[in-house]
Amino acid sequence: MNLGIVRYVIARLLQIEALLMILPLIVSFIYAESWNYKLSFISVMVLLVVLGQLLAWKKPKSNRLTAREGLVIVALTWILYSFFGGLPFVINGDIPSIVDAFFETSSGFTTTGSSILDNVELLSHSSLFWRSFTHLVGGMGILVFALAVLPQIDAQSVHIMKAEVPGPTFGKLVSKISSSARILYIIYLVMTAVLIVLLWWSGMPLFDSMLHAFGVAGTGGFGIKVGSVAPYQNPTAEWIMAIGMIVFAINFNLYYMILIGQAKQALKSEELRGFLLIILAAIVLISFNLWPSYDSFSTLVRDVVFAVSSVISTSGFSTADFGQWPLFSQTVLLLIMFVGGSSGSTAGGLKASRVILYLKFAIAEIRKVVQPHRVLTVKFDGKPLTKESKQGLSSYFVVYMCLFFLLLLVTNLDAPDFLSGFSAVTTTLNNVGPALGQFGPAYSFASLNDFTKVVLSFSMLAGRLELFPILILFAPRTWRR
Amino acid sequence: MNLGIVRYVIARLLQIEALLMILPLIVSFIYAESWNYKLSFISVMVLLVVLGQLLAWKKPKSNRLTAREGLVIVALTWILYSFFGGLPFVINGDIPSIVDAFFETSSGFTTTGSSILDNVELLSHSSLFWRSFTHLVGGMGILVFALAVLPQIDAQSVHIMKAEVPGPTFGKLVSKISSSARILYIIYLVMTAVLIVLLWWSGMPLFDSMLHAFGVAGTGGFGIKVGSVAPYQNPTAEWIMAIGMIVFAINFNLYYMILIGQAKQALKSEELRGFLLIILAAIVLISFNLWPSYDSFSTLVRDVVFAVSSVISTSGFSTADFGQWPLFSQTVLLLIMFVGGSSGSTAGGLKASRVILYLKFAIAEIRKVVQPHRVLTVKFDGKPLTKESKQGLSSYFVVYMCLFFLLLLVTNLDAPDFLSGFSAVTTTLNNVGPALGQFGPAYSFASLNDFTKVVLSFSMLAGRLELFPILILFAPRTWRR
Repeated sequence: MNLGIVRYVIARLLQIEALLMILPLIVSFIYAESWNYKLSFISVMVLLVVLGQLLAWKKPKSNRLTAREGLVIVALTWILYSFFGGLPFVINGDIPSIVDAFFETSSGFTTTGSSILDNVELLSHSSLFWRSFTHLVGGMGILVFALAVLPQIDAQSVHIMKAEVPGPTFGKLVSKISSSARILYIIYLVMTAVLIVLLWWSGMPLFDSMLHAFGVAGTGGFGIKVGSVAPYQNPTAEWIMAIGMIVFAINFNLYYMILIGQAKQALKSEELRGFLLIILAAIVLISFNLWPSYDSFSTLVRDVVFAVSSVISTSGFSTADFGQWPLFSQTVLLLIMFVGGSSGSTAGGLKASRVILYLKFAIAEIRKVVQPHRVLTVKFDGKPLTKESKQGLSSYFVVYMCLFFLLLLVTNLDAPDFLSGFSAVTTTLNNVGPALGQFGPAYSFASLNDFTKVVLSFSMLAGRLELFPILILFAPRTWRR
Repeated sequence: MNLGIVRYVIARLLQIEALLMILPLIVSFIYAESWNYKLSFISVMVLLVVLGQLLAWKKPKSNRLTAREGLVIVALTWILYSFFGGLPFVINGDIPSIVDAFFETSSGFTTTGSSILDNVELLSHSSLFWRSFTHLVGGMGILVFALAVLPQIDAQSVHIMKAEVPGPTFGKLVSKISSSARILYIIYLVMTAVLIVLLWWSGMPLFDSMLHAFGVAGTGGFGIKVGSVAPYQNPTAEWIMAIGMIVFAINFNLYYMILIGQAKQALKSEELRGFLLIILAAIVLISFNLWPSYDSFSTLVRDVVFAVSSVISTSGFSTADFGQWPLFSQTVLLLIMFVGGSSGSTAGGLKASRVILYLKFAIAEIRKVVQPHRVLTVKFDGKPLTKESKQGLSSYFVVYMCLFFLLLLVTNLDAPDFLSGFSAVTTTLNNVGPALGQFGPAYSFASLNDFTKVVLSFSMLAGRLELFPILILFAPRTWRR
């Protein structure tokens, strides 16, 4: 382990977090908030800059950055960003507890959207802005962002991007990593800007439009009203967000392909088709289940499409309180929480491509039992999978479920009932946001004890970084020279 | 598919079921029950013999029996045994509904022990005997029993035994399959006889001792009193059963090794050590959790050891109502339901050896991330695993979880709450018996609708036969010539 380079890169990244805090500071000035709020951001910015300088004082002896250092950098950066990102809330008193602030900011950066706030409307504008802005930063990746603006560590940064971009496959768009990162970020920010304009046009105030657009773009889901999106009573905005969440849960490489004129090939993507099919199936199943309890067909469809889009994209905004829906509908939602969005999107979960492949593995395994002597290959997008990638995918699932059960055990020391505990782990590990039961859309995670909040924060971080960066922190081998 | 041999073998097996019904008929005579009960068994015996003769009328053109035919024979035999085995209950009126009778008998043969009976004490002696006797037959395997008594189809019967004996590995004891089957059955029956004597000695009536011994030996768990084992208020019997359930959840090959003087090697078994370690961990975790609610330390230990032994061995007898225990303890029980017993035992679940290997896979995967260039091999009992068996084990887990989630979705159309639905699927797929919540030890599965009862019956059969024999019945490819 080359600790020197780890320290050095993290130092620079912490200073970038200080830069990011300029935006909420500006918001604080625009809304003429008291100095309490302005100083909370300024003091943390100063702290981050000074800390960064101290850590970067001694240049690393070697620039060697292997996969191991890449993973450790990513994991520690996300933990430190969540910790320092939460400090302004603690200082200005909007979230007095440091554990709560860590939970809320992890939830922000990991684009989970689970909250410990019972009344989010009590927050200042600057706090609300920073809280939602973490979704935008975390959505595409903190380090991908850094790579887009700091191209100097290019040669070895493939290890970093691999660790941070979700999904089983990592497709570089262009040969140069920093260019790839920049292209992705431009697509991402343009689409976010379009979303802000559309929401504003639908009648939402500009400030609210921006914050909701951040939440949709990062598939995060922090609302800024008690009751999330419901209080706006704006069906147009609900439809815009529902479609927006699905758009941001689709692999960004496909948008790049469309941009360079390969739309036809992009639409052939097996993951895209499977993902849309799962969405459709979930909408149909839940609609049939909820049918009797709705008077208006259009309201039913809107509520169901919004909930399915919000949950499968792992955003977590809500209009209807699906915590009150029948058990079957809640079970469908729980299952699509595990599915999540596409690889290479801002969404969490196992990713549609993995789930499709797991179903294919299951079918192939049954076929193999029937015809043991026939050689069967599992294909994806027309290409046969190698044994190594098949093994890697299966192992990922095993690791994922082991971690899931371990988290469930620890969480249920504190959870009020099984559905609440089970869905709390599901929602955090898959970066969805609200759970069901006592942690459903109408409630918050405030009632948990500090230990469980920290555990669930790690669940969010592990889920966002696809397990390994966080897990290897606990392996003694990682720290050997 | 050689349907001729399938038809022929099943015909003979149905006649063996008729033979097995002689025992409850004798019980009916001993207790001088009304002719209603005697005739219920006699009529089904006649039906089975006649049906068997008709099906076996035409000899199969070919004796070719491949893995595919083996799996289909096993699956259909278990389904038909459960169906015909339930008919006496329908005819004598002890379980009037045919779906309920199918559920109860599947539960018996698969050694699950889930019941639709709210008051089991209303059953006649012959019905109670037959119901518990199915545990003894199903425990070691219907077809293994058949092989032990019908040695003529020996050469190809390895396919049958592979399909029916639980666990990822199949170790023949001796070169001849029918001899292996006979040795296993002798060990099994001698141990059951010892258990009957011990329970009788502890003060339990002989009839009750026999039926409980059947339930322990098959790790089935049908009680014959409301409240399972609790009403006997017999701590000695509770300890005998608790230890007995663990003994029958250990690989029988180890007992054979001890018999032939290889005790030292048997005790080195990695599965055995892992299994005992998991049991110990579960006992410690639950004891700490329950500590405050118990006055007596010895009662606490006895209740916890009994519950853990009963659940991990997938028996399902109960003394304390663990449906009322705190959520953490219930979660521990749920997790060890998934673990189950050892391969080559009468227990269900994923099997200790698989779970140990999954944990090893997870650790190896994390190591691989840290040291991508080092070749890591996962070993079991000192031998490195081949890539094929590693892939097969991972795929099994994927298939298992896919089926689990599908069953959960369907069950939750009908379940009253999430814990009840989730644990109902867990308990049936792992052949445990009682679930938690509304299907906990103090309740039955009677409140479910017929469709869900059939689904859960298939869940039990799929679990007992380790998925594939039942799953391939739904694959069109299976039925091609």
